[in-house]
Amino acid sequence: MEAYIKPRVLRGFRDSLPEEETAKGRLIAILENTFRLFGFVPIDTPVLEYSEILLGKSGGETEKQVYRFLDHGKRDVAMRYDLTVPFARFMASHHSRLYLPFKRYHIAKVWRGENTQRGRYREFIQCDFDIVGTDSTSADFEILLVMVKSIQALGIDDFRIHFSHRGTFNRLLKRLGLEEKSFEILRTVDRLKKLGLRKLKSQLEPIAGDREVDCIVNFIEPEESSEKTIEKLIGQAGGEDTDTLRLREILKLIERLDLEKYFSLDPSITRGLDYYTGLVYETYLTDQPGLGSICSGGRYNNLASLYTKEKIPGVGSSIGLDRLLTAMLEIGKLEGSENRRALLVLCLDEKYLDYYHEIACALRDEGVAVEVYPEKKKLARQFQYAEKKKFPFALICGEDEREKGTVILKDLRTRESYADLKPQDIAHQVDKLLATSQTES
Amino acid sequence: MEAYIKPRVLRGFRDSLPEEETAKGRLIAILENTFRLFGFVPIDTPVLEYSEILLGKSGGETEKQVYRFLDHGKRDVAMRYDLTVPFARFMASHHSRLYLPFKRYHIAKVWRGENTQRGRYREFIQCDFDIVGTDSTSADFEILLVMVKSIQALGIDDFRIHFSHRGTFNRLLKRLGLEEKSFEILRTVDRLKKLGLRKLKSQLEPIAGDREVDCIVNFIEPEESSEKTIEKLIGQAGGEDTDTLRLREILKLIERLDLEKYFSLDPSITRGLDYYTGLVYETYLTDQPGLGSICSGGRYNNLASLYTKEKIPGVGSSIGLDRLLTAMLEIGKLEGSENRRALLVLCLDEKYLDYYHEIACALRDEGVAVEVYPEKKKLARQFQYAEKKKFPFALICGEDEREKGTVILKDLRTRESYADLKPQDIAHQVDKLLATSQTES
Repeated sequence: MEAYIKPRVLRGFRDSLPEEETAKGRLIAILENTFRLFGFVPIDTPVLEYSEILLGKSGGETEKQVYRFLDHGKRDVAMRYDLTVPFARFMASHHSRLYLPFKRYHIAKVWRGENTQRGRYREFIQCDFDIVGTDSTSADFEILLVMVKSIQALGIDDFRIHFSHRGTFNRLLKRLGLEEKSFEILRTVDRLKKLGLRKLKSQLEPIAGDREVDCIVNFIEPEESSEKTIEKLIGQAGGEDTDTLRLREILKLIERLDLEKYFSLDPSITRGLDYYTGLVYETYLTDQPGLGSICSGGRYNNLASLYTKEKIPGVGSSIGLDRLLTAMLEIGKLEGSENRRALLVLCLDEKYLDYYHEIACALRDEGVAVEVYPEKKKLARQFQYAEKKKFPFALICGEDEREKGTVILKDLRTRESYADLKPQDIAHQVDKLLATSQTES
Repeated sequence: MEAYIKPRVLRGFRDSLPEEETAKGRLIAILENTFRLFGFVPIDTPVLEYSEILLGKSGGETEKQVYRFLDHGKRDVAMRYDLTVPFARFMASHHSRLYLPFKRYHIAKVWRGENTQRGRYREFIQCDFDIVGTDSTSADFEILLVMVKSIQALGIDDFRIHFSHRGTFNRLLKRLGLEEKSFEILRTVDRLKKLGLRKLKSQLEPIAGDREVDCIVNFIEPEESSEKTIEKLIGQAGGEDTDTLRLREILKLIERLDLEKYFSLDPSITRGLDYYTGLVYETYLTDQPGLGSICSGGRYNNLASLYTKEKIPGVGSSIGLDRLLTAMLEIGKLEGSENRRALLVLCLDEKYLDYYHEIACALRDEGVAVEVYPEKKKLARQFQYAEKKKFPFALICGEDEREKGTVILKDLRTRESYADLKPQDIAHQVDKLLATSQTES
């Protein structure tokens, strides 16, 4: 007996089967279309980079998760673990050739050797879009707007973007004498949704002290309206400043464009990453809060500071493509349709293959997706294939039809047959049947 | 002075800037559309796999080039170096869940630590499409047809697919008593285009012997017509057999579908890979033969034999996406158009940002790509930005226009301005101007 290699995949990795890959393609196409309508352009960067480039900025936790090794030339290399660090390096490399403000999107895989027991994958897709080269209210607002329009374009209207400003929170912490612990505190507060308020308090106390924790907890609680929340923030952070002014301007734009129902000013939003300097935000689907944030980001004003003295301010957001895909597959939004212009030519006799392929070519020229079943197998098997691939129509052509130069079109949804059809009339008949079923359904 | 990390990329790797990435996206979209019209579906597989999976089948040369390392769990892993081996593993894993014949395409990056001095990249995109689960003339022909239609869909009509059959060549070698050296000989003949006939002969002589080399050289020379070539092959291979019958059937289909100008029966085509068992082919652009083959492949009837006892015959082809992209950028086929429905809203005063964004949103709903310049910078700078990003139109709206509730549309191609336009009439005016310039050009 021959010894076979077991066809397994690494833990935390997975194949993408056609249904999923097709759905993913549809999702990405919708997002790309939205990005392009806003003037964003695509870029790509290498999967492998020098480890010092990718890890220069990160702490121990990241480093442990990164796939890192020595290549053939003994270079210390690593696989990218996000799209932000490569983008920073990209901007440092190319800023003089690019027009600023530069608006890019990047949809690509990243790798992290995370603990798979938490249901995490070690290979996943990120989808980032950023505007760099400007620290302006308009850019902040535009990123929020792209988020709204992207999610709407996916057919989802019931979601909410929670946002706040790092600067305001930092002012509070400074006032409380906690400036040096600010990142530790922001990171703890970032876990509020996971911990709940009580656990959060008990975790904050050893860091911040009892009285200060009460101030923090009071600060992060949203009031009944954005107006009241911002008044509170101004009060507790020590007065109006550029951060609260920016928040006000954004609130005004949200109101003017009639988008209030999609936004909450929520001071508990801090984001766990240290590079954010301004606005920060997360997005939750109302029906599936357990999914976590499906789109998050913020403003960072020192993007490329590790690689260049050039100051490159930016604001961006990242869509959790895998989460969104899961959500959309669950609600059936990306399913393949049985009402598409698609057709299987059955193989009744291999001597008619030329005729089958000729008809198929002509139909494809009219935009109909056509397959020719490649062998003379039992018809039951060929029909089964059509069903598996959700073909709405089949073409049947045996000796009689070949002699007359006609075909039989079979509507596999209704099981009706249409005989004596001329090849050049098939596309029209298909469209007629599709239109009828559209009207009926 | 602060020490910056030099923003460099690894040798053999490169960033993809927006122009290139956009062109690549267009190219891929065209190919995917063709694949889908033929009923091919997309899949994806992990970038990292167990090394034994990826390397089980390959010889020393491949092994040296593969990025291979121990991961966090001390597993011996490697980055995929092609899409064929992962596909074999994929079929072994999933064949029972998939409908056969299964037609998939896979467009994804692969990595090889090749010598960069030969102008090779270490990270590049492969684009494979295959039909598995059937050893039929129809499937062989359909792959050839997809190649023709894909290249035509890219706007290229001047190309030729050279094809032959491994089985016929193997029969000749068996007749010459060279059966055991057949792979070595096929691999050497595969380099004919690089070596030229004289060098090929001198390289073949020590392997095959003088008299045999003459037979081989005579065999691989195409005759003046496919008819004559196939007669010669039958004669020299020792009579008609399944391989020559398959070639005849394919020639017949090519003729019936009027595709002769795209094909040459060329017995010098052998392909350098050992898994091919039947038809093999390569494609050359008539105007750019130096580019090498832009689309190659063949039939392999033991695809997944390393991983399963299941027999899975297949036929497939691989498009050299990077080569094709180079060719198409050179002939300007994928350039961004200055005649697209796109528009930059200039920022004359930041207090009108709500108005600017409102207009932009409404226009995007009509499918016009719109950017709002985010800050009040000098107009010259804003126009420069419009020019860099090839915007055909700009919208100007200052105090007067805001009061009247109108805008000025500027055609940046002709420098004409259209004042007193109502926001809801902009899209129509844009389309009118685009239609006019279409007619004129």
